[in-house]
Amino acid sequence: MRHLSLMAPEIKELLKTTNNKEELQEILREMHPADIADILFSLETKEQVILISRIDKKQMLKVFNQLDEYEQFELLDKLEKDLSAYLLNEMSSDERADLLSSLPDDVEKKFLNLMSEAERKDVEKLLKYPANSAGSIMSTEYVSLIPELTVAQATELLRQAAPKKETIYYSYVTDQDNKLIGFVSLKDIFLSSPEVPIKKIMNRKVIKALAKQDQEEVAKLVRKYNLLALPVVDKDKTLVGIITVDDIMDVVKEETTEDFYKMAAMLAPTDAYFETGFFTLVRRRIVWLLILLAAVQFSGQILKRYSFVLESVVALSFFIPMLLNTAGNAGTQSSTTIIRGLATGEIGISQIFKVVRREIMLGVVLGTLLGVLGVGRALLLQRNPIVSLAVGFALAATIVMATLSGAFLPMLLKKLKIDPAVAAGPFISTVVDITALIIYFEIAKSLLGL
Amino acid sequence: MRHLSLMAPEIKELLKTTNNKEELQEILREMHPADIADILFSLETKEQVILISRIDKKQMLKVFNQLDEYEQFELLDKLEKDLSAYLLNEMSSDERADLLSSLPDDVEKKFLNLMSEAERKDVEKLLKYPANSAGSIMSTEYVSLIPELTVAQATELLRQAAPKKETIYYSYVTDQDNKLIGFVSLKDIFLSSPEVPIKKIMNRKVIKALAKQDQEEVAKLVRKYNLLALPVVDKDKTLVGIITVDDIMDVVKEETTEDFYKMAAMLAPTDAYFETGFFTLVRRRIVWLLILLAAVQFSGQILKRYSFVLESVVALSFFIPMLLNTAGNAGTQSSTTIIRGLATGEIGISQIFKVVRREIMLGVVLGTLLGVLGVGRALLLQRNPIVSLAVGFALAATIVMATLSGAFLPMLLKKLKIDPAVAAGPFISTVVDITALIIYFEIAKSLLGL
Repeated sequence: MRHLSLMAPEIKELLKTTNNKEELQEILREMHPADIADILFSLETKEQVILISRIDKKQMLKVFNQLDEYEQFELLDKLEKDLSAYLLNEMSSDERADLLSSLPDDVEKKFLNLMSEAERKDVEKLLKYPANSAGSIMSTEYVSLIPELTVAQATELLRQAAPKKETIYYSYVTDQDNKLIGFVSLKDIFLSSPEVPIKKIMNRKVIKALAKQDQEEVAKLVRKYNLLALPVVDKDKTLVGIITVDDIMDVVKEETTEDFYKMAAMLAPTDAYFETGFFTLVRRRIVWLLILLAAVQFSGQILKRYSFVLESVVALSFFIPMLLNTAGNAGTQSSTTIIRGLATGEIGISQIFKVVRREIMLGVVLGTLLGVLGVGRALLLQRNPIVSLAVGFALAATIVMATLSGAFLPMLLKKLKIDPAVAAGPFISTVVDITALIIYFEIAKSLLGL
Repeated sequence: MRHLSLMAPEIKELLKTTNNKEELQEILREMHPADIADILFSLETKEQVILISRIDKKQMLKVFNQLDEYEQFELLDKLEKDLSAYLLNEMSSDERADLLSSLPDDVEKKFLNLMSEAERKDVEKLLKYPANSAGSIMSTEYVSLIPELTVAQATELLRQAAPKKETIYYSYVTDQDNKLIGFVSLKDIFLSSPEVPIKKIMNRKVIKALAKQDQEEVAKLVRKYNLLALPVVDKDKTLVGIITVDDIMDVVKEETTEDFYKMAAMLAPTDAYFETGFFTLVRRRIVWLLILLAAVQFSGQILKRYSFVLESVVALSFFIPMLLNTAGNAGTQSSTTIIRGLATGEIGISQIFKVVRREIMLGVVLGTLLGVLGVGRALLLQRNPIVSLAVGFALAATIVMATLSGAFLPMLLKKLKIDPAVAAGPFISTVVDITALIIYFEIAKSLLGL
């Protein structure tokens, strides 16, 4: 296979005239839909339309399923009604629900009108599930079997169903009320004799998700049990859909990005960087900057309150950045460790005391080492031993406190069912700044006898 | 299925006497190996040994494959030689290579001596691949077929091979020199007539990884092409292994944690939080704290150089935390956006100018808004209009600069093939602190006419 970056210019060249339609189609047939999707969105609008007219319908559908919601919408906007209707009706059900839920109401209605009755009902059912729930990411294109079928009958059924289903590697077994009672893998079917009934080979211990369960928890199940897909049931155990591992990879990516953004004090993104409008980016960032700007005013007030100390020894101000930075860094280290541990499941909320004890000990060791160093550094920059001692003590005390709050706050938030990731930047830096300054000036004040 | 947290005490109870051996075995047979693994490591050493003696060998192997390297080592240390040898010989090849590569040399040798000739050769081959390469995470338990086989013959071969292979959902087709020429999915085989030769149904466009390729790139391939497994070839296209999607989920988790740690200025972890020794945690955190402590000394020097300005107007010091914090926050927002975008592939290195231009514009908008607010805030805290103006200008200028360096530095590092995640905390905060202080005091100096 040639490298993708070499294909794009070649395809652009072929799009210029209509003479080489055949040659282009030949190339496209050889390409993976994901690669065509990549190239499609590096083209100008006019070129996009020509390229699409050269791809056959079935391959177009595969390309379409590879796009994200934003790109799908952009494309549907440019296509003829017939092709739009075809893509909307035939695309995978989970992707379709994602697409429609991201659209403004009027566009959603327009698209719903292009769809067949059955597909419309399907998507309306999926849209009822809350955002980020298992129901909101599941597909309704699964294989279900009844336990009385023989392996031979199931094989025949799978053969017919295969092209329309998300996966045939797992089939789910349901009773007459459509309640989930077991599953069989294609491997089980493949390895069994044709006359054996499904109920003899099915596995009754099914790892399943509830439709309302949070997608992050579902991702943990898939990772823990190494699943390729898992069934979704509603509260009375009726099978309502499946989630495949590729959907889970997307969930993990999305949730991780959300954590990164929260920890950097930003509102979580909904689209990729270049697909996000400029003022959405501004809004996403300014909200937290304003909150933090308001919070940091406390530091100003504290400094004002202690300005008589500062006036008597200006050298005290030299060490304010060092103090706040180092404490902030220690707090971030601690909170990041705990937040990430909670996200991966390596740290459980029940271990709160064990974690806090460990982090306090860490804080004491780190604080002592850096405090001693801080005294030395302060002496090098100015000769006042009292200022230097105040720097050392404050540094040590602040690091202990930063480490402690970095560990405790995320666990507290988790306990309160608030996402611990928001604790990292904002809360901790404010708490740390304020206490660091008070400790620093109180120590200096008493050492200086003010 | 009962909830796991209810099972653990029940099992603990059953371990107390030997009378209910049968009952315990019955419960264990019904449990998923991953759940047994969870419970196993919540037990005391003595209880662990009893539990293991109750599990049959085959299930024990499944439990063992679920453990991480640290737990596997702990367990092997406690088991009898026979059982250890069985587990080491039968465990999956990729897990085994992971385990052995994490051990001290003498333990590695001891374990190698317990293994059969064939398994020893297998693991020695795998250990030659560099850490974090495709070769280092691949399994050698794959199905390979020759193109001349019929579907019926391949079916027979798959039936026999299934129990020993990592997956039978994809089979890889090789020529007489073991060079990879195509693949067939179990679905393809399942849907084809028995007399058709494999070469007619195989797909020649194989997405593959090179053995030396970085695991993060391999993860991107798996996600982009929605693969359940992908083959690994060496430089002359010989098939050497496969990587399955569950391995990729582990890679993604590991690489993400690494990014979080780097961005919080910590050395990346190798084990889970509670499995890491206390002094390893200290070391992992202190290295960067020391570097940052050294870097922040520049701020002290700058403050000392401008102490005549501070002495003349002490109120200037009230706004130093606000200035440094807000600029730092803006820089972190920008760098986190870019670093995450680079990690997910949403932002490419070729888009450097587009990104930098966009971030500068963002910086200008955010800087102007916050600068104006900063003037107002400064006036509220103290009445000096000159100080307030200096605060506003410095805030605006520093935010622009922070946003710019937050965008530019990660892209520069990526270009230099250094992990951009290290740019987030350390570099940027130092650069931002220094320039923020210089801008602030220079503006104040000239406005105050000093």
